[in-house]
Amino acid sequence: MSPIPNLAAVVATVGKEMQPHLGGGHVADYIPALARVDGRRFGLAVITCEGETAEFGDAWMPFSIQSISKVFTLTMALERLGAELWKRVGREPSGSRFNSIVQLENEKGVPRNPFINAGAIVVTDALMAGREPGAVIADIRDTMRGLADTDAIDIDKEVATSEAATGFRNYSLANFMRGFDNLKSPVEDTLQTYFHQCSMRISCRQLARAGLFLANRGVDPLTKVQVTTANRTRRINAVMMTCGHYDASGEFAFQVGLPGKSGVGGGILTIVPGKAAIAVWSPGLNEAGTSHVGAMALESLATKMGWSVF
Amino acid sequence: MSPIPNLAAVVATVGKEMQPHLGGGHVADYIPALARVDGRRFGLAVITCEGETAEFGDAWMPFSIQSISKVFTLTMALERLGAELWKRVGREPSGSRFNSIVQLENEKGVPRNPFINAGAIVVTDALMAGREPGAVIADIRDTMRGLADTDAIDIDKEVATSEAATGFRNYSLANFMRGFDNLKSPVEDTLQTYFHQCSMRISCRQLARAGLFLANRGVDPLTKVQVTTANRTRRINAVMMTCGHYDASGEFAFQVGLPGKSGVGGGILTIVPGKAAIAVWSPGLNEAGTSHVGAMALESLATKMGWSVF
Amino acid sequence: MSPIPNLAAVVATVGKEMQPHLGGGHVADYIPALARVDGRRFGLAVITCEGETAEFGDAWMPFSIQSISKVFTLTMALERLGAELWKRVGREPSGSRFNSIVQLENEKGVPRNPFINAGAIVVTDALMAGREPGAVIADIRDTMRGLADTDAIDIDKEVATSEAATGFRNYSLANFMRGFDNLKSPVEDTLQTYFHQCSMRISCRQLARAGLFLANRGVDPLTKVQVTTANRTRRINAVMMTCGHYDASGEFAFQVGLPGKSGVGGGILTIVPGKAAIAVWSPGLNEAGTSHVGAMALESLATKMGWSVF
Amino acid sequence: MSPIPNLAAVVATVGKEMQPHLGGGHVADYIPALARVDGRRFGLAVITCEGETAEFGDAWMPFSIQSISKVFTLTMALERLGAELWKRVGREPSGSRFNSIVQLENEKGVPRNPFINAGAIVVTDALMAGREPGAVIADIRDTMRGLADTDAIDIDKEVATSEAATGFRNYSLANFMRGFDNLKSPVEDTLQTYFHQCSMRISCRQLARAGLFLANRGVDPLTKVQVTTANRTRRINAVMMTCGHYDASGEFAFQVGLPGKSGVGGGILTIVPGKAAIAVWSPGLNEAGTSHVGAMALESLATKMGWSVF
Repeated sequence: MSPIPNLAAVVATVGKEMQPHLGGGHVADYIPALARVDGRRFGLAVITCEGETAEFGDAWMPFSIQSISKVFTLTMALERLGAELWKRVGREPSGSRFNSIVQLENEKGVPRNPFINAGAIVVTDALMAGREPGAVIADIRDTMRGLADTDAIDIDKEVATSEAATGFRNYSLANFMRGFDNLKSPVEDTLQTYFHQCSMRISCRQLARAGLFLANRGVDPLTKVQVTTANRTRRINAVMMTCGHYDASGEFAFQVGLPGKSGVGGGILTIVPGKAAIAVWSPGLNEAGTSHVGAMALESLATKMGWSVF
Repeated sequence: MSPIPNLAAVVATVGKEMQPHLGGGHVADYIPALARVDGRRFGLAVITCEGETAEFGDAWMPFSIQSISKVFTLTMALERLGAELWKRVGREPSGSRFNSIVQLENEKGVPRNPFINAGAIVVTDALMAGREPGAVIADIRDTMRGLADTDAIDIDKEVATSEAATGFRNYSLANFMRGFDNLKSPVEDTLQTYFHQCSMRISCRQLARAGLFLANRGVDPLTKVQVTTANRTRRINAVMMTCGHYDASGEFAFQVGLPGKSGVGGGILTIVPGKAAIAVWSPGLNEAGTSHVGAMALESLATKMGWSVF
Repeated sequence: MSPIPNLAAVVATVGKEMQPHLGGGHVADYIPALARVDGRRFGLAVITCEGETAEFGDAWMPFSIQSISKVFTLTMALERLGAELWKRVGREPSGSRFNSIVQLENEKGVPRNPFINAGAIVVTDALMAGREPGAVIADIRDTMRGLADTDAIDIDKEVATSEAATGFRNYSLANFMRGFDNLKSPVEDTLQTYFHQCSMRISCRQLARAGLFLANRGVDPLTKVQVTTANRTRRINAVMMTCGHYDASGEFAFQVGLPGKSGVGGGILTIVPGKAAIAVWSPGLNEAGTSHVGAMALESLATKMGWSVF
Repeated sequence: MSPIPNLAAVVATVGKEMQPHLGGGHVADYIPALARVDGRRFGLAVITCEGETAEFGDAWMPFSIQSISKVFTLTMALERLGAELWKRVGREPSGSRFNSIVQLENEKGVPRNPFINAGAIVVTDALMAGREPGAVIADIRDTMRGLADTDAIDIDKEVATSEAATGFRNYSLANFMRGFDNLKSPVEDTLQTYFHQCSMRISCRQLARAGLFLANRGVDPLTKVQVTTANRTRRINAVMMTCGHYDASGEFAFQVGLPGKSGVGGGILTIVPGKAAIAVWSPGLNEAGTSHVGAMALESLATKMGWSVF
């Protein structure tokens, strides 16, 4: 076999490889705060289960977490509700766009998986369990702070306000599911919570750190805190693999071969089971709404490190 | 960490665990030759990259390979056409039934992935590349014999004839794609080839042996023959993970956590990357058309061996 | 040819024929005020362009107009906007349920026709044209009063409130279209107006009288007031014929052969071009959401009077 | 009221009005025999129930009847099977393209109506009732000859052969329905019959004559032969109104206000119940596959004659 690659060297190489590609893709512009971001930013952070870290570029610069938050609220909701959650949301790839409502009609208000918007809204609603939005928002933020081992994670109120003001499709999805009684809190409460969770600002370094428990059977390898069970960890990773990138999940599995979850802010969290967590950020998106340069960097990194699960 | 589980002991345990469940599910009955199979049969075979084998029950009894053949024709077509193949078939989960034609209409005759029927028909058509059905059928059979390292693999002509006589949906799919010029050989030629490839008879032992190269970066670890590249191997496994079980692929990833491909004959081929190939057979199917007891056995086996990729 | 049938005698005969069927179908029960209605009620009123009237049963009892109001708001919106309206709503049968959102996704927020819920919401929004809900609601009510030549038409506030409280699907549709910028007023304003228009209480006698202009090229034959042009009248009737009963419009054309519009309150307005307007009411609905006995009565009446347009 | 318009003068006026528009639209080119037709041809023929005729342009030139044949096979099948036919085909607008297969999957092989391709294939299959294609083809041709009162109607074998050679979508539809057991004859037999019925050559004059019974309660007003019952006539007209132009049926009802059926050869048969039959032909098609100039001519003619049923 070939020698074990040097993580720091590989991260540096990948970072340099990406330079000519920076600025590619299309920065999300449906709200002003996202549109203002410099499309040439690029950050990469890796943290291993042994605690080794490697970073490149804007790895310390916070960006909008957006849909990556769905991984963490799924974990929280599973801890709170257990397998009951799966009565309200499926775990199959949808084969459709992130905000499609078609399947919801055909399947009576039960979303295909927790990572399309409809599914994530149900997960947030389940997580609320009757609590007030403020309490749940604080709970999510504090959980992220705990996982990332830092108090420097906050919610961008301007982004949350803009999401609410332009989120007609999410209002449509939420009301649709409410009509099927698959939303329990008032639509406005659930959506406000959802918009706030998506508006957290986080850096690559923080994000990789926060996701590390998913690479280590549910236990944070540095603090030894058990975040969730080994069994749930495997399953969350499985859902990330099959559903983490909407209707481009197959492509990500094909190209990168690792469980991952992308956000429209340009971030991608990727898990190397048993080994490491990776966070990459570059704001330009491809047609599927995933970071264009981010996906390239992950493919290169996974190949060089021999990290595909396949 | 826990001690390394003993493969033979685990296989025996899993086999015994399954006994109370035998006869569950529904044996495929759309053609007589499949309907005649005893629903209480159960076979399990594992072969590791080091050549260690473990078997249980009817592991030597041949069954109808059906859709599992799609993994091998995909490998052959990729070797023959390379990445050109992906212009004619996608690699995304479809979110639909194995024989759905809906997406084909919306996406102009390009099937979502090579494992739904429409996609597998395109792959077979690509593999034909102008050759006569007889030659291609022999090519597929001989490839399977080579991979399984035995001449005892044959095509059941009765099954092939029945498939053709009842395969209206496949004729519909094929003509539909032909109308979009995504079938190159005459519909009848491509379908005859397809029906024959699905009618191969193979045992668990042979199937696990034939798939072993997928657990070893494309190289048969016992003969050292390079069947395909490491890169393609990863990608075939990725497509198995996201698309190997039609609209229940997410469930299989969730429960078993390994790339796999099921067939309506009751067989499932599963790959443990870097470690082993598993074949299980039990004719009773669940609602998704996957072996009911087979899937249970794989979940138990994967858990006990710690073999989930997640 | 056969002698001209006597309208009063036919109406009496039809009324009696229906007696054994009263209580059939299923009374709408999604809001309390509708569920309370006695399912055995039956009213029938015909008014000809010459002013002849014939009535049977509960023809003077007010019921909830519901979707029949869409005919009148369509007329009003066409008068206000002219052909511009057709840029925001189509005029094709949808082939789908009254509240389906599927087509809306495929066709970028433009509803198929003005009689499915989505289309009617767009029509109401167009009719608002920046006005306050209160003003538009009064406008609609006053227009109905004018057409029916009576001040005894009012809006049932309890029903309007219930519609709003349970109308999640309509909120979903409205927000969906708002996301495609095909709603101009705030969602809440447009929906409040829509819920109020659907909550008018009207009797068969009033309804037939109000719709009479549609049987007479747009001119009220009794007052000689021109409500709309002859050209628009033909087109409103055409849309009633092809789209007036959601995914059972073909059936109504097949059985009755006249333009009509049904409401979930159990009423149906039917136009006999050049001859008469018919209103029937019976609360029990068939599977398509149309009055079960009402449709039977219309088929019998149309046959006996020789009134099919075909 | 205005004076009764003079038919001959109106037909002449309409014919002249169309001159600047000739050559518009797109001539069907999927088979050579259709593509060769001069796109500037225009024929118009009207025949009243009193036997008055009026013609313009190429009214005597035969063209390919294509889907207009579906009206006549529907009439024949209803005579042969009665209401049993409606168990195998619906009578609702589909809201979809003429050759869509999507609804067929959702509705288990029962086409929405007899005028989309799938529905017409079922009707032809029903009409066969076990007979050989040759006999049924002769039956259809002889029926058309009888209705048109001429022996000068023949089938263009070249067109029929081309239809079969390129008709992959129809093969797909037929096999799909065969898989749901909604086709009784062998697929090839039914389709050969269908392709031949669509390949009849007929002139406007012959077509209007052949359809005249539909304007006269099922009785040919000139020969007094009863072709079908008054009741069936109304229903055939109703289906023409709601489904005669695929996903543009609403538009035709809106613009012309008469039951009609178009064909991809550029012909349109239109019925004025109680008054007349109209046939128009102009090969250039609009986006919906209906004759561009033909639809314009019908709108003008219907308006000038005051012939809308609405």
